[in-house]
Amino acid sequence: MAHKIGIVDTTFARVDMAKYALEVLMEHVPNLDVVRYTVPGVKDLPAAVKKLIDDGCEAVMTFGWVGPALIDKYCYLTMGIGLTMLQALTGKHVIDVTVHEDEAVDEKGLRSIAIDRAKKHALNLVRILLYGGKGLIPHAGKGLRQGVPDVGPIE
Amino acid sequence: MAHKIGIVDTTFARVDMAKYALEVLMEHVPNLDVVRYTVPGVKDLPAAVKKLIDDGCEAVMTFGWVGPALIDKYCYLTMGIGLTMLQALTGKHVIDVTVHEDEAVDEKGLRSIAIDRAKKHALNLVRILLYGGKGLIPHAGKGLRQGVPDVGPIE
Amino acid sequence: MAHKIGIVDTTFARVDMAKYALEVLMEHVPNLDVVRYTVPGVKDLPAAVKKLIDDGCEAVMTFGWVGPALIDKYCYLTMGIGLTMLQALTGKHVIDVTVHEDEAVDEKGLRSIAIDRAKKHALNLVRILLYGGKGLIPHAGKGLRQGVPDVGPIE
Amino acid sequence: MAHKIGIVDTTFARVDMAKYALEVLMEHVPNLDVVRYTVPGVKDLPAAVKKLIDDGCEAVMTFGWVGPALIDKYCYLTMGIGLTMLQALTGKHVIDVTVHEDEAVDEKGLRSIAIDRAKKHALNLVRILLYGGKGLIPHAGKGLRQGVPDVGPIE
Amino acid sequence: MAHKIGIVDTTFARVDMAKYALEVLMEHVPNLDVVRYTVPGVKDLPAAVKKLIDDGCEAVMTFGWVGPALIDKYCYLTMGIGLTMLQALTGKHVIDVTVHEDEAVDEKGLRSIAIDRAKKHALNLVRILLYGGKGLIPHAGKGLRQGVPDVGPIE
Repeated sequence: MAHKIGIVDTTFARVDMAKYALEVLMEHVPNLDVVRYTVPGVKDLPAAVKKLIDDGCEAVMTFGWVGPALIDKYCYLTMGIGLTMLQALTGKHVIDVTVHEDEAVDEKGLRSIAIDRAKKHALNLVRILLYGGKGLIPHAGKGLRQGVPDVGPIE
Repeated sequence: MAHKIGIVDTTFARVDMAKYALEVLMEHVPNLDVVRYTVPGVKDLPAAVKKLIDDGCEAVMTFGWVGPALIDKYCYLTMGIGLTMLQALTGKHVIDVTVHEDEAVDEKGLRSIAIDRAKKHALNLVRILLYGGKGLIPHAGKGLRQGVPDVGPIE
Repeated sequence: MAHKIGIVDTTFARVDMAKYALEVLMEHVPNLDVVRYTVPGVKDLPAAVKKLIDDGCEAVMTFGWVGPALIDKYCYLTMGIGLTMLQALTGKHVIDVTVHEDEAVDEKGLRSIAIDRAKKHALNLVRILLYGGKGLIPHAGKGLRQGVPDVGPIE
Repeated sequence: MAHKIGIVDTTFARVDMAKYALEVLMEHVPNLDVVRYTVPGVKDLPAAVKKLIDDGCEAVMTFGWVGPALIDKYCYLTMGIGLTMLQALTGKHVIDVTVHEDEAVDEKGLRSIAIDRAKKHALNLVRILLYGGKGLIPHAGKGLRQGVPDVGPIE
Repeated sequence: MAHKIGIVDTTFARVDMAKYALEVLMEHVPNLDVVRYTVPGVKDLPAAVKKLIDDGCEAVMTFGWVGPALIDKYCYLTMGIGLTMLQALTGKHVIDVTVHEDEAVDEKGLRSIAIDRAKKHALNLVRILLYGGKGLIPHAGKGLRQGVPDVGPIE
């Protein structure tokens, strides 16, 4: 069975995260049908996600990039509320991969976080696409992280 | 009468809280029908909750885990708005069990909070499932807490 | 004419505020039909309020209790957004009586605030139930307060 | 043509701002049909606004008053989200006149801000009622302020 | 094919940003049909945007101006939630150009940011109008900025 998904990213981001996510998705999901949509910044993601859901996508991945100032964080919050509202209204997963510029001390660190987070969340989406809500149960409570190493469960 | 409920947890969490909640639920509710769904992190909970409500669950328990940084708290706020929106739109209870990593000074403390909170909120859900809105009236204003000891009413 | 209203409170609260509000409501509104519903904490209020509105209540009073930490305030914000959303969608009043644990220096002070606020807001609801939007016009801009003494208008 | 509008204010406010706004509205709009509704505080505005929109008002003015504490600001945020949601769902203007108690150093200053803001926003509503979205185009980007003197455009 | 878009700005802003955006839009989009709507401040944008979407606009540009105080930022957050909600409900782009008064040290700097941001976002909208979600893909992850110089991708 073919899976149709949406990929929405921004021109604001400094790493082409969608490329790395698509590599993982296409490696693991046969007959993947991808619709890609690029917007200026995170505040523009909700419109694109809504268009792709209306266009028949069963899930959407979003790739955001957020600056260090308080007002940047408010934009992130606004975006988050829009994406969570879409989830609540449609029941479609919107797996968000966002990098914050204050997460690392230099560009190399940011790039590393961005690529790791994009790949790992792509794998999360693979499991949900192929196995539904049961796909990630074996990993529940395991302290998995994206962008940084897993911390593991507290035994 | 059978009760169908949803359980949604994350791979980000470091304790398998759902396990402890399920023990309590299954002990007290005969013919319990449970649908479990695991997502990556708290921002992904609303889509899963919506799917389970649409699938016929009369209530859902969610289990979140949130880091100590401001941006983690914004993710928590986003999740909270999504879950409250689902409650407002559907009238279904979404009993949320979330642990914040800055609630305790060490892993042992976090684990203790997580298990206690999961069990006590499972018992809250039991009372609502069996007796509706009247099930918790005897405890109204009693200063009950989850994760830490009850503080009691102010007489 | 009978008035049907909802009362939703929590087991988290440390004062049975609903009791004091109900005394005021029943004293002033003939044929009052009250449906009471108790939930664990403020995050659970929106589901109960929605159930009671769907059940035919023309207005709902909610009684919350909120801790002093930032994350407690975020829960309050989440609750507030849920209740305001219900108002915006249904046009039903949801008169909220919430006490914050950092409003007073000791338990006696908190209890005093809680009881005063519950009674005064119950009287506000009485005026709205009996006289609609005109019931409070004589008090518009008068600097009324609940939980603490009125401050009066600025002349 | 008659214009029907709503006026919603609070008993919490310390100045009867609606009175000043109504003077301006009635002076400039022939056949103005006003429905006034008073609620306890800003958190109660959304229900009243929804009732008045459902009652046929083409626009609503709201008058809020907000204390200086963080939790007061969260109530303001909650109110703002409710009113913006109503705008987004109905396409009706909800012109909000809110005074924050920390905007001035004394009561005289607060009263002055309140009256000026109410009158100027009433005039804004007049222009929208009479000329629609074109009524304020001549003032676009002109640095107009309400409650304080205009700052003017940056040339 | 003609494109109908909405332009919503404020009297609060200190620069007529819409003028600069319209120059760019009309230069690049043949048969552009523009509906302009001016409101008092950012909190009033959602009603106007909703009216223009209902009036058949396929996208809307908004131009906001926000003061430096915390309460100004809360108004921005409220506006952002309203605009993101409109995107989530309608799937229409609402490209927002907002300037914050604390972004620059003097008026000249603010004016420069405002004009640059308006022009660049107008060009973003041109690409979306003419080529849909594919129009900006060549710029994905390229570190583009509006109001300030592009920072470029991290290689």
